[in-house]
Amino acid sequence: MKKFNAEDITEDGKKKFSIKKADTKVKDFYDSEKEYLEMLAELQDQLDDLQTRLYANSKYGILVIFQAMDAAGKDGTMKAVFKNVNPLGLKFYSFKRPSTKELNHDYLWRCFKELPERGTVQVFNRSYYEEVLVVKVHPEILHTQQRIPDELIAEDVWADRYEDIKNFEKYLSRNGIKVIKFFLNVSREEQSDRLIERIEDASKNWKFEDGDIKERDFWDDYMAAYEDMINATATKRNPWYVIPADDKKNMRLMVARILVENLKGLNLEYPESSEERRAQLEGMIGTIREQNKK
Amino acid sequence: MKKFNAEDITEDGKKKFSIKKADTKVKDFYDSEKEYLEMLAELQDQLDDLQTRLYANSKYGILVIFQAMDAAGKDGTMKAVFKNVNPLGLKFYSFKRPSTKELNHDYLWRCFKELPERGTVQVFNRSYYEEVLVVKVHPEILHTQQRIPDELIAEDVWADRYEDIKNFEKYLSRNGIKVIKFFLNVSREEQSDRLIERIEDASKNWKFEDGDIKERDFWDDYMAAYEDMINATATKRNPWYVIPADDKKNMRLMVARILVENLKGLNLEYPESSEERRAQLEGMIGTIREQNKK
Repeated sequence: MKKFNAEDITEDGKKKFSIKKADTKVKDFYDSEKEYLEMLAELQDQLDDLQTRLYANSKYGILVIFQAMDAAGKDGTMKAVFKNVNPLGLKFYSFKRPSTKELNHDYLWRCFKELPERGTVQVFNRSYYEEVLVVKVHPEILHTQQRIPDELIAEDVWADRYEDIKNFEKYLSRNGIKVIKFFLNVSREEQSDRLIERIEDASKNWKFEDGDIKERDFWDDYMAAYEDMINATATKRNPWYVIPADDKKNMRLMVARILVENLKGLNLEYPESSEERRAQLEGMIGTIREQNKK
Repeated sequence: MKKFNAEDITEDGKKKFSIKKADTKVKDFYDSEKEYLEMLAELQDQLDDLQTRLYANSKYGILVIFQAMDAAGKDGTMKAVFKNVNPLGLKFYSFKRPSTKELNHDYLWRCFKELPERGTVQVFNRSYYEEVLVVKVHPEILHTQQRIPDELIAEDVWADRYEDIKNFEKYLSRNGIKVIKFFLNVSREEQSDRLIERIEDASKNWKFEDGDIKERDFWDDYMAAYEDMINATATKRNPWYVIPADDKKNMRLMVARILVENLKGLNLEYPESSEERRAQLEGMIGTIREQNKK
């Protein structure tokens, strides 16, 4: 894949991240539709192979997080990227408006339940990062919905949440759950076009939610919240990948490539059998044949 | 309740805790069986009242943790202490040998699922602290059962776990989940008597597990693990209460008293209605009477 440098879109906390300076567009990685499809297919196959190794190895779990503004292309990206991966080892979870039962709990509770088992990939469509995005933009949620005791809501409540989330991901890493975080960075203009398309194209009406328009009024607040979140929670171990999202094809290639590189980094070899085990297994061929004679 | 000073049994991390110096016996808090029962009944009623306030208030959740060697009296203490509490707002969870599904997850997963909802009390019979007790005494579990990737198991794996657990409890506190931790400290001699009684008394045979005897061989290792655990995870916000456990009655009085004091500390007032709300409610009396006429 040409012209792709993962470093350009990796935020690992070393330098300050500025959302105003972050690209929402890139030069095309492909010259033709045919080339795009070939590149994507190759990455899809690599991901399938790596996930099979992950499953056989069964020591690591993978948590993939997608955060973005509405209509940035989360759903389509997931669908395209994981197309070839064995569904036995792959789960998706979409975080919607929390239920009464979920609000009765601490905010990580509903995420924790859905964490991946070893050997599997869990994809979060939104995540606990909503706690420092939508809740930060609408802080009354802390009181009205989450019912955090007033005396516990200090001025530095967001700093506390960043710290807790960082600690949580450190804990996960230490226990073999690798967290891979994507922010799909769409421009306000491109989002506008996509939302209007969802209205004009009757077949896309189901994707449109009236509330999306209301949230657009808070665009700058959201951008500030994303910037703060990335600066506070991007680490070497758990970086944020800020993916230019105005072109869906380029976005999919980038996301797939990042996933492939991360999984390769785990050195997922198929578990090797010892000499002894090999001999034991060979012996079982005889047993199977004996059984057939009965 | 006389002669009881909570400070004597509170470990909040200020001074080093030595398990050898910790009492397993105390002078009786009561002079007669009658007095004991009266004292216990009063505490049980107070807990019931406080739990009703907790439920009405519905902002805090309470997590009570009991850790102890076998036969220290966990079950009996829970039963006695929570006798009068409304079961609608009270749950118990016993952590047994983890299932295959649980072992496929990070170690906090199975605990997280069982965290209390706001307004309720959740009691853990054993807990995530087993991860730095039985697993520390038998560290092969990290590899064979938990399947933590080898490259992630550093020498300071226990220091990491202490830190992760402390961070986890800090997060809970910040979100209104109060953690109250008891270590029921039984002497080796008293444990011996109780285990023998479980064998001699046929009606208690069901409580006896053959494995308990094997674990007795590791008594010193367990004591060292408890000492390290308490020193590493006792904080001002989340202290350990080290309860002398050789006498069950004294133990119950101490545990109940600590719980009452902790809940009182939350200042759980019944939510007050505003003037406006009062007027609204008064109006509804009329509505109810109108309905009756139909």
